[in-house]
Amino acid sequence: MKLHGYFRSSAAYRVRIALNVKGLGAEHLPHHLRKGEQCAPAYLAINPQGLVPALEDDAGAVLTQSVAIIEWLDEIHPNPPLLPKDPLRRAKVRAFALAIACDTHPVQNLKVLARLRELGLAEEKVQEWAAWVNREGLSACETLIKDEPGPFCFGDAPTLADLCLVPQLANARRFGVDVAAYPRLLKAEAAAKALPAFANAAPENQPDAE
Amino acid sequence: MKLHGYFRSSAAYRVRIALNVKGLGAEHLPHHLRKGEQCAPAYLAINPQGLVPALEDDAGAVLTQSVAIIEWLDEIHPNPPLLPKDPLRRAKVRAFALAIACDTHPVQNLKVLARLRELGLAEEKVQEWAAWVNREGLSACETLIKDEPGPFCFGDAPTLADLCLVPQLANARRFGVDVAAYPRLLKAEAAAKALPAFANAAPENQPDAE
Repeated sequence: MKLHGYFRSSAAYRVRIALNVKGLGAEHLPHHLRKGEQCAPAYLAINPQGLVPALEDDAGAVLTQSVAIIEWLDEIHPNPPLLPKDPLRRAKVRAFALAIACDTHPVQNLKVLARLRELGLAEEKVQEWAAWVNREGLSACETLIKDEPGPFCFGDAPTLADLCLVPQLANARRFGVDVAAYPRLLKAEAAAKALPAFANAAPENQPDAE
Repeated sequence: MKLHGYFRSSAAYRVRIALNVKGLGAEHLPHHLRKGEQCAPAYLAINPQGLVPALEDDAGAVLTQSVAIIEWLDEIHPNPPLLPKDPLRRAKVRAFALAIACDTHPVQNLKVLARLRELGLAEEKVQEWAAWVNREGLSACETLIKDEPGPFCFGDAPTLADLCLVPQLANARRFGVDVAAYPRLLKAEAAAKALPAFANAAPENQPDAE
């Protein structure tokens, strides 16, 4: 498999963790987002959204959208599972993951922040926007799992929820969010980061890290 | 079941279609988003994100995030299916749906547009932002299914992809996007709108429509 990504992309980071949890190898093909390499015609032919990640399977099929890629990995390599078996628990895990993957990350990604700058917003206000988006998302996530004993978001093993949480907390810190306000999320993050699958997927451990 | 929604919320619209496709009834509880009813403490106790939809099942369990709700409905009421059986096809359907549910809709929702106004952006620029987001998302979606014969997004029956597409096209038109640029999407929309499950879920056919 080939994973098109970027060390700092939190969506690519989710898929790196999933591959590690499943014990699957992939050739990592970095695209420098700040240099706009994701908008090169050759990459747009792979993913018309011009976003990372994209995963090419061994037969050359292209998969896009990190959550769809992770669901696919979980379907074809079911062990260890990244979703619980019970439908209601699956829905809870997916809802937590999508609170990040839909309502948080895309509203503060590179493309949106660049657009805010184009509209004449001062850099300080752009950073405030990103921090606001992260606070909104993470405080809802904190409430969603406040009664979950953990230590992971949902139970004693990582799920899709943790795969979305850990990269988002990294973003939140980068934008100056005081993450101490989310003790339950930090508990899950600590449990996750103790696992090599998460540690080896971290941005700073990627070959294209700056 | 109880569906917390709003006639014009495109995320609630997706779930209304899913319930109709599955032949399931639900009590509809509207929350007027423009009046901020989704931020009332009683509703935040149901969904800490302060977003619609939220679905309460007959045992009182609360589900949030439209795509997670639809996946759950599809798991517990598998017929007619809203996802194909083949894992790679499922991944394609989910990727299309998430291109809308992650990268398009949340970047142009009421909350984000309100924030842009708070930052001093003129109304014309706010509308341009929403149109830009819709064009970016829909043009990628058009490419994603350009080689799919249809008539639906993926094959001869509606899937999660169509459930996300039809409400998003309604948004795009509301923001003045020239949707004629997306003939393949319009073909899928026409097929979907011919079904009562979609027609009955349309915003203008809801009791709280204005």
